[in-house]
Amino acid sequence: MTPTITAFEASPDRGRGLARDMRVRWALEEIGQPYDVRLVTFESMKQPAHKALQPFGQIPTYEAGDLVLFESGAILLHLGETHPGLLPADPKARARAIAWMFAALNTVEPPIFDRSLATILERDKPWFEERVAGLDKLIRLRLADLSAALGERDWIAGDFTAADILMVTTLRRLAGTGLLEEHPNLAPYVARAEARPAYQRAFDDQAAVFEASQG
Amino acid sequence: MTPTITAFEASPDRGRGLARDMRVRWALEEIGQPYDVRLVTFESMKQPAHKALQPFGQIPTYEAGDLVLFESGAILLHLGETHPGLLPADPKARARAIAWMFAALNTVEPPIFDRSLATILERDKPWFEERVAGLDKLIRLRLADLSAALGERDWIAGDFTAADILMVTTLRRLAGTGLLEEHPNLAPYVARAEARPAYQRAFDDQAAVFEASQG
Repeated sequence: MTPTITAFEASPDRGRGLARDMRVRWALEEIGQPYDVRLVTFESMKQPAHKALQPFGQIPTYEAGDLVLFESGAILLHLGETHPGLLPADPKARARAIAWMFAALNTVEPPIFDRSLATILERDKPWFEERVAGLDKLIRLRLADLSAALGERDWIAGDFTAADILMVTTLRRLAGTGLLEEHPNLAPYVARAEARPAYQRAFDDQAAVFEASQG
Repeated sequence: MTPTITAFEASPDRGRGLARDMRVRWALEEIGQPYDVRLVTFESMKQPAHKALQPFGQIPTYEAGDLVLFESGAILLHLGETHPGLLPADPKARARAIAWMFAALNTVEPPIFDRSLATILERDKPWFEERVAGLDKLIRLRLADLSAALGERDWIAGDFTAADILMVTTLRRLAGTGLLEEHPNLAPYVARAEARPAYQRAFDDQAAVFEASQG
Protein backbone atom coordinates (compact mmCIF):
# COMPACT_ATOMS: atom_id res chain seq x y z
CA MET A 1 0.00 0.00 0.00
CA THR A 2 1.41 3.38 -1.01
CA PRO A 3 1.48 5.80 1.91
CA THR A 4 0.46 9.43 1.53
CA ILE A 5 2.25 12.32 3.18
CA THR A 6 1.30 15.99 3.34
CA ALA A 7 3.55 18.90 2.41
CA PHE A 8 3.25 22.65 1.78
CA GLU A 9 1.84 23.63 -1.60
CA ALA A 10 4.20 26.62 -1.44
CA SER A 11 6.81 26.11 1.26
CA PRO A 12 7.90 29.24 3.13
CA ASP A 13 11.50 28.07 2.73
CA ARG A 14 11.14 28.49 -1.06
CA GLY A 15 12.27 24.94 -1.80
CA ARG A 16 15.38 24.86 0.36
CA GLY A 17 14.27 21.59 1.96
CA LEU A 18 13.86 23.01 5.47
CA ALA A 19 10.17 22.11 5.88
CA ARG A 20 9.61 18.96 7.86
CA ASP A 21 8.18 16.92 4.99
CA MET A 22 11.82 16.74 3.79
CA ARG A 23 12.61 14.41 6.69
CA VAL A 24 9.83 12.01 5.80
CA ARG A 25 10.59 12.13 2.06
CA TRP A 26 14.25 11.39 2.78
CA ALA A 27 13.42 8.48 5.09
CA LEU A 28 11.02 7.00 2.55
CA GLU A 29 13.68 7.26 -0.15
CA GLU A 30 16.22 5.56 2.14
CA ILE A 31 13.95 2.55 2.52
CA GLY A 32 12.87 2.59 -1.11
CA GLN A 33 9.20 3.13 -0.31
CA PRO A 34 7.24 5.00 -3.00
CA TYR A 35 4.73 7.51 -1.65
CA ASP A 36 2.07 9.97 -2.67
CA VAL A 37 2.03 13.60 -1.61
CA ARG A 38 -1.04 15.68 -0.85
CA LEU A 39 -0.27 19.38 -0.90
CA VAL A 40 -1.89 21.71 1.61
CA THR A 41 -2.13 25.48 1.81
CA PHE A 42 -1.66 27.56 4.95
CA GLU A 43 -5.40 27.98 4.98
CA SER A 44 -6.38 24.33 4.45
CA MET A 45 -3.90 23.18 7.13
CA LYS A 46 -5.96 24.92 9.78
CA GLN A 47 -9.29 23.42 8.68
CA PRO A 48 -10.98 20.52 10.51
CA ALA A 49 -10.22 17.99 7.73
CA HIS A 50 -6.48 18.44 8.20
CA LYS A 51 -6.65 18.84 11.97
CA ALA A 52 -8.34 15.45 12.14
CA LEU A 53 -5.01 14.09 10.85
CA GLN A 54 -2.70 16.64 12.51
CA PRO A 55 -4.21 18.15 15.68
CA PHE A 56 -1.92 21.21 15.56
CA GLY A 57 -2.56 22.02 11.89
CA GLN A 58 1.00 21.34 10.72
CA ILE A 59 2.74 19.23 8.10
CA PRO A 60 3.81 16.48 7.56
CA THR A 61 1.31 13.75 8.16
CA TYR A 62 1.67 10.09 7.17
CA GLU A 63 -1.27 7.94 6.14
CA ALA A 64 -0.99 4.23 5.36
CA GLY A 65 -4.34 2.45 5.31
CA ASP A 66 -6.03 3.27 8.60
CA LEU A 67 -2.82 4.32 10.31
CA VAL A 68 -2.48 8.10 10.56
CA LEU A 69 0.64 9.57 12.11
CA PHE A 70 1.94 13.09 12.71
CA GLU A 71 5.23 14.58 13.99
CA SER A 72 8.22 13.96 11.75
CA GLY A 73 10.09 12.23 14.59
CA ALA A 74 7.26 9.78 15.18
CA ILE A 75 6.90 9.06 11.47
CA LEU A 76 10.62 8.33 11.11
CA LEU A 77 10.57 6.13 14.19
CA HIS A 78 7.63 4.18 12.79
CA LEU A 79 9.35 3.73 9.43
CA GLY A 80 12.54 2.67 11.21
CA GLU A 81 10.72 0.09 13.27
CA THR A 82 8.85 -1.40 10.33
CA HIS A 83 11.57 -1.31 7.62
CA PRO A 84 15.28 -2.06 7.61
CA GLY A 85 17.69 0.78 6.87
CA LEU A 86 16.83 3.50 9.37
CA LEU A 87 17.59 1.95 12.77
CA PRO A 88 20.04 -0.69 14.02
CA ALA A 89 18.65 -4.21 14.46
CA ASP A 90 20.36 -4.76 17.83
CA PRO A 91 17.97 -3.57 20.58
CA LYS A 92 20.57 -1.64 22.58
CA ALA A 93 22.06 0.04 19.53
CA ARG A 94 18.52 0.84 18.43
CA ALA A 95 17.68 2.43 21.78
CA ARG A 96 20.85 4.55 21.52
CA ALA A 97 19.98 5.67 17.99
CA ILE A 98 16.51 6.61 19.20
CA ALA A 99 18.09 8.65 22.02
CA TRP A 100 19.94 10.58 19.32
CA MET A 101 16.67 11.11 17.44
CA PHE A 102 15.21 12.74 20.54
CA ALA A 103 18.42 14.73 21.11
CA ALA A 104 18.23 16.14 17.59
CA LEU A 105 14.63 17.21 18.08
CA ASN A 106 14.65 18.30 21.72
CA THR A 107 18.15 19.48 22.50
CA VAL A 108 19.74 20.61 19.24
CA GLU A 109 16.77 21.85 17.22
CA PRO A 110 15.02 24.24 19.66
CA PRO A 111 17.62 27.05 19.74
CA ILE A 112 18.32 26.61 16.02
CA PHE A 113 14.64 26.79 15.14
CA ASP A 114 14.20 29.79 17.45
CA ARG A 115 17.03 31.51 15.61
CA SER A 116 15.36 30.89 12.23
CA LEU A 117 12.10 32.21 13.59
CA ALA A 118 13.69 35.27 15.20
CA THR A 119 15.41 36.25 11.95
CA ILE A 120 11.99 36.22 10.27
CA LEU A 121 9.72 37.62 12.98
CA GLU A 122 11.96 39.81 15.14
CA ARG A 123 14.37 41.35 12.64
CA ASP A 124 12.90 44.84 13.12
CA LYS A 125 12.65 44.64 16.91
CA PRO A 126 15.01 46.70 19.05
CA TRP A 127 16.18 43.56 20.80
CA PHE A 128 17.00 41.59 17.65
CA GLU A 129 20.79 41.63 17.91
CA GLU A 130 20.86 40.77 21.59
CA ARG A 131 18.32 38.00 21.08
CA VAL A 132 20.28 36.38 18.26
CA ALA A 133 23.51 36.70 20.26
CA GLY A 134 21.84 34.86 23.15
CA LEU A 135 20.61 32.10 20.86
CA ASP A 136 24.00 31.81 19.18
CA LYS A 137 25.61 31.31 22.57
CA LEU A 138 23.31 28.38 23.28
CA ILE A 139 23.65 27.01 19.74
CA ARG A 140 27.45 27.10 20.11
CA LEU A 141 27.23 25.04 23.31
CA ARG A 142 25.08 22.47 21.54
CA LEU A 143 27.31 22.32 18.47
CA ALA A 144 30.46 21.93 20.56
CA ASP A 145 28.93 18.95 22.36
CA LEU A 146 27.59 17.49 19.13
CA SER A 147 30.97 17.88 17.45
CA ALA A 148 32.70 16.13 20.35
CA ALA A 149 30.15 13.29 20.28
CA LEU A 150 30.47 12.83 16.52
CA GLY A 151 34.27 12.89 16.58
CA GLU A 152 35.71 11.23 13.51
CA ARG A 153 32.74 9.00 12.85
CA ASP A 154 30.63 9.36 9.74
CA TRP A 155 27.26 9.15 11.51
CA ILE A 156 26.04 10.03 14.97
CA ALA A 157 24.87 6.59 16.13
CA GLY A 158 27.03 4.00 14.35
CA ASP A 159 25.79 3.32 10.84
CA PHE A 160 23.52 5.84 9.13
CA THR A 161 20.19 6.05 10.99
CA ALA A 162 17.04 8.15 11.25
CA ALA A 163 18.92 10.16 13.89
CA ASP A 164 21.18 11.48 11.13
CA ILE A 165 18.15 12.52 9.09
CA LEU A 166 16.80 14.51 12.04
CA MET A 167 20.18 15.95 13.03
CA VAL A 168 21.25 16.95 9.53
CA THR A 169 17.92 18.53 8.61
CA THR A 170 18.25 20.53 11.84
CA LEU A 171 21.84 21.60 11.18
CA ARG A 172 20.99 22.65 7.63
CA ARG A 173 19.03 25.58 9.09
CA LEU A 174 22.39 27.08 10.08
CA ALA A 175 23.65 27.37 6.49
CA GLY A 176 25.08 30.84 5.98
CA THR A 177 25.51 31.63 9.68
CA GLY A 178 29.10 30.35 9.90
CA LEU A 179 28.26 28.48 13.10
CA LEU A 180 28.71 24.99 11.66
CA GLU A 181 32.10 25.94 10.27
CA GLU A 182 33.45 26.62 13.77
CA HIS A 183 33.87 22.85 14.11
CA PRO A 184 35.87 20.91 11.52
CA ASN A 185 33.57 17.88 11.49
CA LEU A 186 30.07 19.37 11.31
CA ALA A 187 29.87 20.87 7.81
CA PRO A 188 31.42 17.66 6.36
CA TYR A 189 28.82 15.64 8.29
CA VAL A 190 26.03 17.64 6.67
CA ALA A 191 27.69 17.40 3.24
CA ARG A 192 28.12 13.62 3.62
CA ALA A 193 24.40 13.28 4.31
CA GLU A 194 23.41 15.60 1.46
CA ALA A 195 25.47 13.44 -0.92
CA ARG A 196 23.28 10.40 -0.30
CA PRO A 197 21.16 9.54 -3.34
CA ALA A 198 18.06 9.24 -1.14
CA TYR A 199 18.63 12.77 0.17
CA GLN A 200 19.05 14.11 -3.34
CA ARG A 201 15.87 12.49 -4.64
CA ALA A 202 13.90 13.84 -1.69
CA PHE A 203 15.41 17.30 -2.06
CA ASP A 204 14.67 17.45 -5.78
CA ASP A 205 11.09 16.31 -5.23
CA GLN A 206 10.31 18.96 -2.61
CA ALA A 207 12.08 21.64 -4.66
CA ALA A 208 9.97 20.73 -7.69
CA VAL A 209 6.79 21.27 -5.65
CA PHE A 210 7.88 24.78 -4.76
CA GLU A 211 8.88 25.58 -8.33
CA ALA A 212 5.53 24.39 -9.63
CA SER A 213 3.78 26.65 -7.11
CA GLN A 214 5.53 29.65 -8.64
CA GLY A 215 3.80 28.98 -11.97
CA MET B 1 18.97 -5.37 37.62
CA THR B 2 18.18 -2.04 39.26
CA PRO B 3 18.61 0.86 36.84
CA THR B 4 20.28 4.10 37.86
CA ILE B 5 19.11 7.54 36.81
CA THR B 6 20.73 10.93 37.33
CA ALA B 7 19.06 14.00 38.81
CA PHE B 8 20.04 17.43 40.12
CA GLU B 9 21.55 17.48 43.59
CA ALA B 10 19.80 20.86 44.04
CA SER B 11 17.20 21.34 41.33
CA PRO B 12 16.75 24.91 40.09
CA ASP B 13 12.98 24.39 40.34
CA ARG B 14 13.35 24.02 44.14
CA GLY B 15 11.56 20.68 44.23
CA ARG B 16 8.52 21.58 42.15
CA GLY B 17 9.02 18.52 39.94
CA LEU B 18 9.76 20.47 36.76
CA ALA B 19 13.21 18.99 36.13
CA ARG B 20 13.20 16.20 33.58
CA ASP B 21 14.17 13.43 36.00
CA MET B 22 10.55 13.74 37.21
CA ARG B 23 9.37 12.16 33.95
CA VAL B 24 11.64 9.16 34.33
CA ARG B 25 10.85 8.72 38.02
CA TRP B 26 7.11 8.83 37.25
CA ALA B 27 7.42 6.30 34.42
CA LEU B 28 9.47 3.95 36.60
CA GLU B 29 6.84 4.21 39.34
CA GLU B 30 4.06 3.46 36.84
CA ILE B 31 5.75 0.20 35.85
CA GLY B 32 6.76 -0.65 39.42
CA GLN B 33 10.48 -0.66 38.66
CA PRO B 34 12.72 0.28 41.62
CA TYR B 35 15.67 2.48 40.70
CA ASP B 36 18.73 4.16 42.11
CA VAL B 37 19.47 7.86 41.75
CA ARG B 38 22.91 9.40 41.34
CA LEU B 39 22.84 13.12 42.07
CA VAL B 40 24.91 15.53 40.01
CA THR B 41 25.86 19.17 40.52
CA PHE B 42 25.84 21.83 37.82
CA GLU B 43 29.61 21.53 37.81
CA SER B 44 29.86 17.75 37.62
CA MET B 45 27.24 17.59 34.82
CA LYS B 46 29.65 19.37 32.50
CA GLN B 47 32.61 17.09 33.23
CA PRO B 48 33.77 14.31 30.88
CA ALA B 49 32.50 11.51 33.16
CA HIS B 50 28.90 12.73 32.85
CA LYS B 51 29.21 13.78 29.23
CA ALA B 52 30.24 10.22 28.39
CA LEU B 53 26.69 9.30 29.47
CA GLN B 54 24.94 12.49 28.35
CA PRO B 55 26.77 14.25 25.49
CA PHE B 56 25.09 17.61 26.23
CA GLY B 57 25.80 17.58 29.96
CA GLN B 58 22.17 17.40 31.04
CA ILE B 59 20.01 15.23 33.27
CA PRO B 60 18.43 12.68 33.30
CA THR B 61 20.39 9.67 32.17
CA TYR B 62 19.32 6.03 32.48
CA GLU B 63 21.78 3.21 33.02
CA ALA B 64 20.80 -0.47 33.12
CA GLY B 65 23.75 -2.82 32.78
CA ASP B 66 25.63 -1.75 29.66
CA LEU B 67 22.70 0.19 28.23
CA VAL B 68 23.08 3.94 28.70
CA LEU B 69 20.32 6.24 27.49
CA PHE B 70 19.71 9.97 27.58
CA GLU B 71 16.79 12.27 26.66
CA SER B 72 13.69 11.83 28.81
CA GLY B 73 11.58 11.05 25.74
CA ALA B 74 13.91 8.25 24.63
CA ILE B 75 14.06 6.80 28.14
CA LEU B 76 10.26 6.75 28.44
CA LEU B 77 9.95 5.16 25.00
CA HIS B 78 12.45 2.47 25.96
CA LEU B 79 10.61 1.75 29.21
CA GLY B 80 7.32 1.67 27.32
CA GLU B 81 8.65 -0.78 24.78
CA THR B 82 10.14 -3.12 27.38
CA HIS B 83 7.45 -3.03 30.09
CA PRO B 84 3.66 -3.06 30.03
CA GLY B 85 1.81 0.00 31.33
CA LEU B 86 3.22 2.92 29.35
CA LEU B 87 2.24 2.20 25.74
CA PRO B 88 -0.64 0.35 24.07
CA ALA B 89 0.08 -3.22 22.96
CA ASP B 90 -1.65 -2.82 19.59
CA PRO B 91 0.97 -1.61 17.05
CA LYS B 92 -1.19 1.10 15.49
CA ALA B 93 -2.38 2.44 18.82
CA ARG B 94 1.23 2.35 20.00
CA ALA B 95 2.41 4.35 16.98
CA ARG B 96 -0.30 6.93 17.68
CA ALA B 97 0.69 7.21 21.34
CA ILE B 98 4.31 7.68 20.26
CA ALA B 99 3.20 10.46 17.91
CA TRP B 100 1.68 12.19 20.94
CA MET B 101 4.96 11.72 22.83
CA PHE B 102 6.76 13.60 20.07
CA ALA B 103 4.00 16.22 19.93
CA ALA B 104 4.39 16.90 23.66
CA LEU B 105 8.14 17.35 23.31
CA ASN B 106 8.40 19.07 19.93
CA THR B 107 5.20 21.01 19.44
CA VAL B 108 3.78 21.80 22.88
CA GLU B 109 6.89 22.08 25.04
CA PRO B 110 9.12 24.50 23.06
CA PRO B 111 7.10 27.71 23.54
CA ILE B 112 6.26 26.73 27.13
CA PHE B 113 9.89 26.06 27.96
CA ASP B 114 10.94 29.30 26.24
CA ARG B 115 8.45 31.15 28.41
CA SER B 116 9.90 29.61 31.59
CA LEU B 117 13.37 30.55 30.45
CA ALA B 118 12.40 34.08 29.46
CA THR B 119 10.84 34.74 32.87
CA ILE B 120 14.16 33.76 34.46
CA LEU B 121 16.70 35.22 32.03
CA GLU B 122 14.93 38.16 30.40
CA ARG B 123 12.79 39.62 33.17
CA ASP B 124 14.86 42.80 33.37
CA LYS B 125 15.12 43.33 29.62
CA PRO B 126 13.17 46.17 28.01
CA TRP B 127 11.52 43.70 25.65
CA PHE B 128 10.32 41.28 28.34
CA GLU B 129 6.60 42.04 28.15
CA GLU B 130 6.47 41.94 24.37
CA ARG B 131 8.47 38.70 24.31
CA VAL B 132 6.18 36.97 26.79
CA ALA B 133 3.12 38.24 24.93
CA GLY B 134 4.47 36.69 21.72
CA LEU B 135 5.12 33.38 23.44
CA ASP B 136 1.71 33.42 25.08
CA LYS B 137 0.09 33.86 21.70
CA LEU B 138 1.83 30.73 20.41
CA ILE B 139 1.16 28.82 23.63
CA ARG B 140 -2.55 29.70 23.34
CA LEU B 141 -2.66 28.25 19.82
CA ARG B 142 -1.07 25.02 21.04
CA LEU B 143 -3.35 24.75 24.07
CA ALA B 144 -6.47 25.35 21.99
CA ASP B 145 -5.50 22.51 19.65
CA LEU B 146 -4.53 20.26 22.53
CA SER B 147 -7.80 20.97 24.32
CA ALA B 148 -9.76 20.14 21.17
CA ALA B 149 -7.83 16.90 20.67
CA LEU B 150 -8.28 15.83 24.29
CA GLY B 151 -12.00 16.62 24.31
CA GLU B 152 -13.78 14.72 27.04
CA ARG B 153 -11.29 11.88 27.20
CA ASP B 154 -9.21 11.27 30.31
CA TRP B 155 -5.91 10.75 28.48
CA ILE B 156 -4.48 12.01 25.22
CA ALA B 157 -3.97 8.67 23.43
CA GLY B 158 -6.61 6.27 24.73
CA ASP B 159 -5.57 4.72 28.03
CA PHE B 160 -2.91 6.41 30.14
CA THR B 161 0.44 6.33 28.30
CA ALA B 162 3.93 7.80 28.38
CA ALA B 163 2.52 10.58 26.19
CA ASP B 164 0.50 11.77 29.18
CA ILE B 165 3.64 11.84 31.33
CA LEU B 166 5.39 14.04 28.77
CA MET B 167 2.36 16.25 28.13
CA VAL B 168 1.42 16.78 31.78
CA THR B 169 4.98 17.50 32.89
CA THR B 170 5.10 20.08 30.11
CA LEU B 171 1.76 21.67 31.02
CA ARG B 172 2.74 21.88 34.70
CA ARG B 173 5.24 24.60 33.76
CA LEU B 174 2.23 26.86 33.12
CA ALA B 175 1.00 26.71 36.72
CA GLY B 176 0.22 30.22 37.89
CA THR B 177 0.01 31.75 34.41
CA GLY B 178 -3.74 31.25 34.02
CA LEU B 179 -3.22 29.87 30.51
CA LEU B 180 -4.35 26.34 31.27
CA GLU B 181 -7.52 27.64 32.88
CA GLU B 182 -8.66 29.19 29.59
CA HIS B 183 -9.78 25.68 28.56
CA PRO B 184 -12.15 23.72 30.79
CA ASN B 185 -10.46 20.35 30.21
CA LEU B 186 -6.74 21.11 30.61
CA ALA B 187 -6.32 21.87 34.31
CA PRO B 188 -8.49 18.81 35.19
CA TYR B 189 -6.28 16.71 32.87
CA VAL B 190 -3.19 17.81 34.79
CA ALA B 191 -4.93 17.27 38.14
CA ARG B 192 -6.05 13.77 37.08
CA ALA B 193 -2.45 12.86 36.28
CA GLU B 194 -1.12 14.38 39.49
CA ALA B 195 -3.57 12.25 41.46
CA ARG B 196 -1.98 9.02 40.26
CA PRO B 197 -0.11 7.23 43.06
CA ALA B 198 2.91 6.77 40.77
CA TYR B 199 3.04 10.51 40.16
CA GLN B 200 2.82 11.24 43.85
CA ARG B 201 5.61 8.85 44.78
CA ALA B 202 7.85 10.30 42.09
CA PHE B 203 7.01 13.85 43.12
CA ASP B 204 7.71 13.18 46.79
CA ASP B 205 11.03 11.52 45.99
CA GLN B 206 12.34 14.39 43.89
CA ALA B 207 11.07 16.94 46.42
CA ALA B 208 12.92 15.09 49.20
CA VAL B 209 16.17 15.41 47.22
CA PHE B 210 15.77 19.16 47.03
CA GLU B 211 14.89 19.47 50.68
CA ALA B 212 17.95 17.43 51.66
CA SER B 213 20.13 19.75 49.58
CA GLN B 214 18.97 22.69 51.70
CA GLY B 215 20.50 21.10 54.79
